Amino acid sequence: MSHNTFGHLFRVTTWGESHGAALGCVVDGCPPGIRFTRAEIQADLDRRRPGQSRFVTQRREPDEVKILSGFIMDDDGETMITTGTPVSMMIENVDQRSKDYGEIARQYRPGHADYAYDVKYGVRDFRGGGRSSARETAARVAAGALARKVVPGLAIRGALISMGKKSIDRANWNWDFVRDGENPFFTPDPASVAVFTTYLDGIRKSGSSVGAVIEIVADGVPAGLGAPIYAKLDQDIASNLMSINAVKGVEIGNGFEAARITGEQNADEMRIGNDGQPVFLSNNAGGILGGISTGQPVVARFAVKPTSSILTPRRSIDRDGNEVEVVTKGRHDPCVGIRAVPIGEAMVACAIADHYLRHRGQTGRV
Amino acid sequence: MSHNTFGHLFRVTTWGESHGAALGCVVDGCPPGIRFTRAEIQADLDRRRPGQSRFVTQRREPDEVKILSGFIMDDDGETMITTGTPVSMMIENVDQRSKDYGEIARQYRPGHADYAYDVKYGVRDFRGGGRSSARETAARVAAGALARKVVPGLAIRGALISMGKKSIDRANWNWDFVRDGENPFFTPDPASVAVFTTYLDGIRKSGSSVGAVIEIVADGVPAGLGAPIYAKLDQDIASNLMSINAVKGVEIGNGFEAARITGEQNADEMRIGNDGQPVFLSNNAGGILGGISTGQPVVARFAVKPTSSILTPRRSIDRDGNEVEVVTKGRHDPCVGIRAVPIGEAMVACAIADHYLRHRGQTGRV
Amino acid sequence: MSHNTFGHLFRVTTWGESHGAALGCVVDGCPPGIRFTRAEIQADLDRRRPGQSRFVTQRREPDEVKILSGFIMDDDGETMITTGTPVSMMIENVDQRSKDYGEIARQYRPGHADYAYDVKYGVRDFRGGGRSSARETAARVAAGALARKVVPGLAIRGALISMGKKSIDRANWNWDFVRDGENPFFTPDPASVAVFTTYLDGIRKSGSSVGAVIEIVADGVPAGLGAPIYAKLDQDIASNLMSINAVKGVEIGNGFEAARITGEQNADEMRIGNDGQPVFLSNNAGGILGGISTGQPVVARFAVKPTSSILTPRRSIDRDGNEVEVVTKGRHDPCVGIRAVPIGEAMVACAIADHYLRHRGQTGRV
Amino acid sequence: MSHNTFGHLFRVTTWGESHGAALGCVVDGCPPGIRFTRAEIQADLDRRRPGQSRFVTQRREPDEVKILSGFIMDDDGETMITTGTPVSMMIENVDQRSKDYGEIARQYRPGHADYAYDVKYGVRDFRGGGRSSARETAARVAAGALARKVVPGLAIRGALISMGKKSIDRANWNWDFVRDGENPFFTPDPASVAVFTTYLDGIRKSGSSVGAVIEIVADGVPAGLGAPIYAKLDQDIASNLMSINAVKGVEIGNGFEAARITGEQNADEMRIGNDGQPVFLSNNAGGILGGISTGQPVVARFAVKPTSSILTPRRSIDRDGNEVEVVTKGRHDPCVGIRAVPIGEAMVACAIADHYLRHRGQTGRV
Repeated sequence: MSHNTFGHLFRVTTWGESHGAALGCVVDGCPPGIRFTRAEIQADLDRRRPGQSRFVTQRREPDEVKILSGFIMDDDGETMITTGTPVSMMIENVDQRSKDYGEIARQYRPGHADYAYDVKYGVRDFRGGGRSSARETAARVAAGALARKVVPGLAIRGALISMGKKSIDRANWNWDFVRDGENPFFTPDPASVAVFTTYLDGIRKSGSSVGAVIEIVADGVPAGLGAPIYAKLDQDIASNLMSINAVKGVEIGNGFEAARITGEQNADEMRIGNDGQPVFLSNNAGGILGGISTGQPVVARFAVKPTSSILTPRRSIDRDGNEVEVVTKGRHDPCVGIRAVPIGEAMVACAIADHYLRHRGQTGRV
Repeated sequence: MSHNTFGHLFRVTTWGESHGAALGCVVDGCPPGIRFTRAEIQADLDRRRPGQSRFVTQRREPDEVKILSGFIMDDDGETMITTGTPVSMMIENVDQRSKDYGEIARQYRPGHADYAYDVKYGVRDFRGGGRSSARETAARVAAGALARKVVPGLAIRGALISMGKKSIDRANWNWDFVRDGENPFFTPDPASVAVFTTYLDGIRKSGSSVGAVIEIVADGVPAGLGAPIYAKLDQDIASNLMSINAVKGVEIGNGFEAARITGEQNADEMRIGNDGQPVFLSNNAGGILGGISTGQPVVARFAVKPTSSILTPRRSIDRDGNEVEVVTKGRHDPCVGIRAVPIGEAMVACAIADHYLRHRGQTGRV
Repeated sequence: MSHNTFGHLFRVTTWGESHGAALGCVVDGCPPGIRFTRAEIQADLDRRRPGQSRFVTQRREPDEVKILSGFIMDDDGETMITTGTPVSMMIENVDQRSKDYGEIARQYRPGHADYAYDVKYGVRDFRGGGRSSARETAARVAAGALARKVVPGLAIRGALISMGKKSIDRANWNWDFVRDGENPFFTPDPASVAVFTTYLDGIRKSGSSVGAVIEIVADGVPAGLGAPIYAKLDQDIASNLMSINAVKGVEIGNGFEAARITGEQNADEMRIGNDGQPVFLSNNAGGILGGISTGQPVVARFAVKPTSSILTPRRSIDRDGNEVEVVTKGRHDPCVGIRAVPIGEAMVACAIADHYLRHRGQTGRV
Repeated sequence: MSHNTFGHLFRVTTWGESHGAALGCVVDGCPPGIRFTRAEIQADLDRRRPGQSRFVTQRREPDEVKILSGFIMDDDGETMITTGTPVSMMIENVDQRSKDYGEIARQYRPGHADYAYDVKYGVRDFRGGGRSSARETAARVAAGALARKVVPGLAIRGALISMGKKSIDRANWNWDFVRDGENPFFTPDPASVAVFTTYLDGIRKSGSSVGAVIEIVADGVPAGLGAPIYAKLDQDIASNLMSINAVKGVEIGNGFEAARITGEQNADEMRIGNDGQPVFLSNNAGGILGGISTGQPVVARFAVKPTSSILTPRRSIDRDGNEVEVVTKGRHDPCVGIRAVPIGEAMVACAIADHYLRHRGQTGRV
């Protein structure tokens, strides 16, 4: 991991600020011969795009991705084929309306990175949060859309499982429903929509905000990915998820629950399946043992804090050392965790793609 | 992060198996001029050493560290001064008694990495868990002992805050008590010792095991450490902690609790202190905003699963595809999480030392 | 070093093909607060741009750089100030005229990377050389223009010192002449212009090509940069220079000549100068001892082979295993080494900037 | 490349000083299942060991390697099989006789790294050159011995081709002679032995020293290794070779000669061989085009400067800013380049092994 790059063989570098000319990513190390279309990348981007329901910020950005390098076009004029060279993708910032940032430029919004950036760098692009804007995650999603194609048979899906004090009922889990156009929450539980709607409307109207917990499940992960001791698959997944803005906790498998139960309850016993392959009788491990994938689904969860951009005035300070009250104006996103679902999927996809290549490199297997 | 190395400027590489000749680490990138003694390194190692109470495995290892390179000896014949070249430290394996590993060599212990290593590498050192043994963590602790000295004024302390279903009372928190020689649990709550003792005795006698949650607090972290976007300080702390065997979850600050509360509750407001410096009125962020330290204490927690080495027979398979029952014999550690306290401290120390150097490199500050 | 990235703290990633939409670079880890203008970056790019004399390829590309991120604009509307976040720069490909690549798509040009790319990746963007086009070096020059500003007082200059069998006379060395607008060769010897002109006209008219040797001198390099043992400053300079297309050899200081002389002749003796500072009486070492800069000028040289794109038919094979004759048509660059001067400067600048930050990170000095 | 580590997937970290307790390396990322013996590693070490003829330093070190981790022992009790975990190897320093370093501790030997280390770190292990001692290269050779086994069919050989002003006759090249026990120079030309003997005896008796040029040839390198643009195979070979102490120049293929000839002379034409495979009609490229191996032998050369440890007094300064005369006493190595042959082989082997794994990782080929 360096400043703005992650991954070891499948490497992603992102760049760009909220209100600059554009943002983007360079995906380096992608295997040659991977076939994809711009529409596929765009589809993932559209899932994280703001402005799609009243529950997410109303900033209007088409977020149209341009793919600038690293491919040849197939004869159909639509399918791109990776050549093994860097894939550069760019999203231009359209809705960067000029406005008066007078106060924002000097005041530190509590819970935001304003103060931290200033104390670190001494200079800061304050427009729209600059580099720390949630817009940066569009670049991650674009990279993740490519990563999904690296491992044959891999399927990565995410869902919102709780919002503030409200949680889904796992008995109702329906993956198809998550991507249903009528589902503004990425929840897998149809019964939860009404609950979340009422709850979040209350939050929104009061000018408040609330956090969320997201669960990502990767099916089709080959056994053997991940490397001891400091390149564990779960470690890199945790790192990737924790790198998303506003994430404060990560779990693998049963996570913190593992600390509350006994060894008998926690161990995933094994049998031989009908196909002669090993079968696990449970998946507390979340598909990873000793940092290495076992062939079971890889399961990760992460907690997103409530955005600090709320309508209630809060006490803070400014660059000059004055005590101030900060009030957020304009766009307001009552639960930023909702849009974190496709972002979390992308980050897990990148971790798995990277480890797939690393495993193949070291061992020649897969 | 590569296979067995972590850190970018303060880099730690560990090596060694449970029953090989030795294990150790190479600490590369340590600043020159750091003064330390072998006794200081040894003191940290002694804190994680097994065999100190009936609650941890009875393997008898002196774990005496040899420091092989990277220093000159001061005139006192005791104080070592780093020269900026790699510090190689080695711990010889003494208690590697030869025994019959017949079954263990072929059977996969549920919840262990046996199966995962075999499916990845096709070959495995099964003696004592090989590379995936908890002994590897001694090398981390040795490296961490050096890391603690990199940042002036830094103090890193850890404590066990829950064990299975039992938790401490935070109102009783006493850091001094954690390192009290009479405290076999690294708990900060004196009142909890009796509770944990009774509880863990029961677990131990029934041949079972239980997990734990550890909290690490770093005081004296300068503001400005950590770098967006994929080298966030909290991300690297999460990565480092998740790389410890048996860890299934990591939190920063209020962690998963942040997902349950509102923006008003979560935001840490700021004022100007009497010394003219910024003061935060709470620390839900755990000392990190936007991936960058704010000067508040850095707070992280991690969940350790119960060891799968329990006396109850469990169903599993062997290398040849047979279904078997596995029974753990010999040494048995009812709560491996206890010893994770100094390990967690070491991993957080390494992350902070690394970011201190990186921040100084990029910005010239501190 | 990974696939398309170099540098450890000052990191440069380049992307793009000759005939794609654009090419560019992401400069990550740049210190905050560096002031620069687009015109300065452009000036360096203009120096390497084709189409400026009859001695370089006539492809017409304006090579206008766009700076997309990583800065705030100063009040003058012209000066950019780095913020410490990634600086993304892009150059759109304009002169990518569509043409019939029928044969080129299948034939392997001798001395080119066509065959190697195909055998590695199985797929290749053959248009204009694709990723292996010399156009990629524009991205290096843009990054180097920023790198030059990282180290206060650093001045990096390069010159062509030989072309084919013709060499300059070092007695005539004049740095000012190198950048003289009337000097199409980057030669420091005014007397050499007539010689090179006649020589290269002959080469050009015969449809042939010729190699060159370039010398780069960095003045103002602080002592102490570079790190043993595998991050020596000379090693990273050699690596950076050897990464330029068509480079086949690199020397530091007196280079291969050092292997021909005695220890007495080679050692650079030291005295104390009038200012009390160490003075070296010669600079055979090229400013680097043990991989660490000494404060003397850093001197490197590299050999550029003659381009294989010549008008003489040559024997080769095609993708289908047929033996063919390849003839280069169209643009023809009789000495690609000429344009390598600003590229070499950029690569040395990046190496020194990176080591400056690394040295500051580890030691806190400078 | 970081401070003391090289390689991306096949990673080597070395540590240790000349007069510390030991030195060694950690080889991380080695594929599992590689079979080797301690005797094989030792054999390579014995080739670089001092004290074997009057032409190399008389320091007596057995240089016995201990292999501490990363393998299981085969049933024969001799063959080790890598497990994919780090292979730690250590060589204890035996001949570290205590002596009076009074002057050496303060004086800067011209041409040595003494001054550079001091100015960088402010502290230095001056005993025997400390970290910058040639002894560090033993760790490289041990790592290289493992690297040789990573690529099936790979054979890496090196030879000394010139010493000072004397060169071999390539017409006499005989690889078998290089490893002949009666050949103290690693020369491939039997006729050169008498010439070199007389020449070097003269150098030695006069207390002088002389440089050398070494050529390394790798046969059996699969086509496709190496990655554009900043991970070119030739670039990493150049970097690895330049990291060896006293190396001042590196060439690939015809190297600097390429800058002197025309495109017609330089291009390696291709035909289809009898087996239907591509055949190159020459190898000016040294087996690498566009940074990628072509299947031809990979050829590299490097120049080693004469050691500065000569018996003639030379002018220098000391730590306190005094002008002094430095005289080397004791052991004296008239041509350190001789022992560089096995070191160069090891460094090329490591570069190729690393790129073999990287190529396999990205493309799944080989």
